[in-house]
Amino acid sequence: MEFLRFVDILEFLGTFAFSISGIRLASAKQFDWFGAFVIGFATAVGGGTMRDLMLDQTPFWMINPIYIISTGIALFVVIFYRKILIRLNYTIFTFDAIGLALFTVVGIEKTLACGFPFWVALIMGIITGCVGGIIRDVLITEIPLIFRKEIYALASLVGGLFYFASDLAGMPAEATKVIAVIAVILTRVIAVRFRISLPILKGSEDEKGIE
Amino acid sequence: MEFLRFVDILEFLGTFAFSISGIRLASAKQFDWFGAFVIGFATAVGGGTMRDLMLDQTPFWMINPIYIISTGIALFVVIFYRKILIRLNYTIFTFDAIGLALFTVVGIEKTLACGFPFWVALIMGIITGCVGGIIRDVLITEIPLIFRKEIYALASLVGGLFYFASDLAGMPAEATKVIAVIAVILTRVIAVRFRISLPILKGSEDEKGIE
Amino acid sequence: MEFLRFVDILEFLGTFAFSISGIRLASAKQFDWFGAFVIGFATAVGGGTMRDLMLDQTPFWMINPIYIISTGIALFVVIFYRKILIRLNYTIFTFDAIGLALFTVVGIEKTLACGFPFWVALIMGIITGCVGGIIRDVLITEIPLIFRKEIYALASLVGGLFYFASDLAGMPAEATKVIAVIAVILTRVIAVRFRISLPILKGSEDEKGIE
Repeated sequence: MEFLRFVDILEFLGTFAFSISGIRLASAKQFDWFGAFVIGFATAVGGGTMRDLMLDQTPFWMINPIYIISTGIALFVVIFYRKILIRLNYTIFTFDAIGLALFTVVGIEKTLACGFPFWVALIMGIITGCVGGIIRDVLITEIPLIFRKEIYALASLVGGLFYFASDLAGMPAEATKVIAVIAVILTRVIAVRFRISLPILKGSEDEKGIE
Repeated sequence: MEFLRFVDILEFLGTFAFSISGIRLASAKQFDWFGAFVIGFATAVGGGTMRDLMLDQTPFWMINPIYIISTGIALFVVIFYRKILIRLNYTIFTFDAIGLALFTVVGIEKTLACGFPFWVALIMGIITGCVGGIIRDVLITEIPLIFRKEIYALASLVGGLFYFASDLAGMPAEATKVIAVIAVILTRVIAVRFRISLPILKGSEDEKGIE
Repeated sequence: MEFLRFVDILEFLGTFAFSISGIRLASAKQFDWFGAFVIGFATAVGGGTMRDLMLDQTPFWMINPIYIISTGIALFVVIFYRKILIRLNYTIFTFDAIGLALFTVVGIEKTLACGFPFWVALIMGIITGCVGGIIRDVLITEIPLIFRKEIYALASLVGGLFYFASDLAGMPAEATKVIAVIAVILTRVIAVRFRISLPILKGSEDEKGIE
């Protein structure tokens, strides 16, 4: 029963959490239902789509309608169960971290399967996990959160490094994946819990240079 | 005389109308001529280019220079006949609706020809018709109009559904296209005429959640 | 010793200058180190990546890690040698012009090698040189500089026209490249030195039309 594998359920929940984050930010900007749906979908599939275009693969969501259905359900939930969602903030944050972790591992494995080296897979893992959120923020004309707030992309990078360390250490494939997923989630949870951020790059408006 | 087919003329006018909308928004932002040209061109070909990249096809405007010529003419018209254009607002709106309709049908048919199923073609129809306008708005740092104003993308969706209903009903190919085109235009005209919008997704700034 | 060819060194410096411009603009927006790195990298490789996707080629930076290393060094320099950089504004401007020139020629030659005609290569030259800066500005939510300031994309266009004129005139391949590179750099330097801009497209906010 491949369609009910545990990891598929997790991936669905991750996609769902990404959609929810997009739809809620859209609602804060007074988007209509369609606009909110587009933002939610772009948040959920934007990273994997950019990865697939660069790997010269058919974008993954064009092969399986589960992703667009997931965003549809997310829109329904935001419209009709808005108040419950607010109380579930921590649950949604957890799904989002799971989504980031799974997207990272999926991105790494797909890139390696296409024959690219380690460092390209690492970048593709980050792109898969993070570009959706960047597209979301560009579409609502906000400076992408990811560039300024708690560690997010770095969690993806940490997970990727654990993936390759485990692989080099000769761990079996399944264990490698599990270790990477846990590394991403832990990094993300610890960063948010203790409000750990990367250093801000100091600069001022008059430093823009000539161009 | 394939190059003078009625549908080619309509497609040229649609591209032209899309370019005009991009160039005029750029002029409101004090862009220079080159910037206005880029915005006009991106508005006209952005949707089809994204579709073609996802379908792994060569972007359509790289095969036929008519599209870039069309934007060039649009720039010329905006620069030298600006006052006439203002009086032609309704005409331009009509061409824009025709453009949306034709782009939708072209997107659907190209996707089906690549062997993708119904629901992918429907999405590609919307992407072909709407993404150009989204790119335009992102480049001028405005929240995309399409997410907040009168029904636009939905007209594309309605046209797509009519396309498949006609096809399922066994209509001949040409009739299917004509029906879809008319459905898009009518939906768009009615929505603007009666100021019909989709419901706004309610939300407030403090609902952004954790991430 | 292909890896030490003069043009490779110039290309490295061009990439470096593009990264610097992205990282410094990011620092003016209080980005963290990771965000600044992403902006720098997107500025440096964004144009070539869009070109490669449209040409159905593997994005160039996925084949050689030199580009990502170049951005890493740029980030290091901005963090630790910020004050020296300010005094080097003119040097950085020069590298940026060299980068624009080399990227233009690389874009033109790669497009011709893929079998596309003259006018497509011209556009791809401009895309290679200019789209990185546009992506940079979109990510920091500024209206792209290129659409409003001194001649930039036009320098790329001028260089492309010199490339084809030299080619038509029967010049040897190497001379054609050198002429094009010099044309881009000269156009850019003259435009900045004498503050030459393209005409602004006149318009006002209430001209947006119906759509």
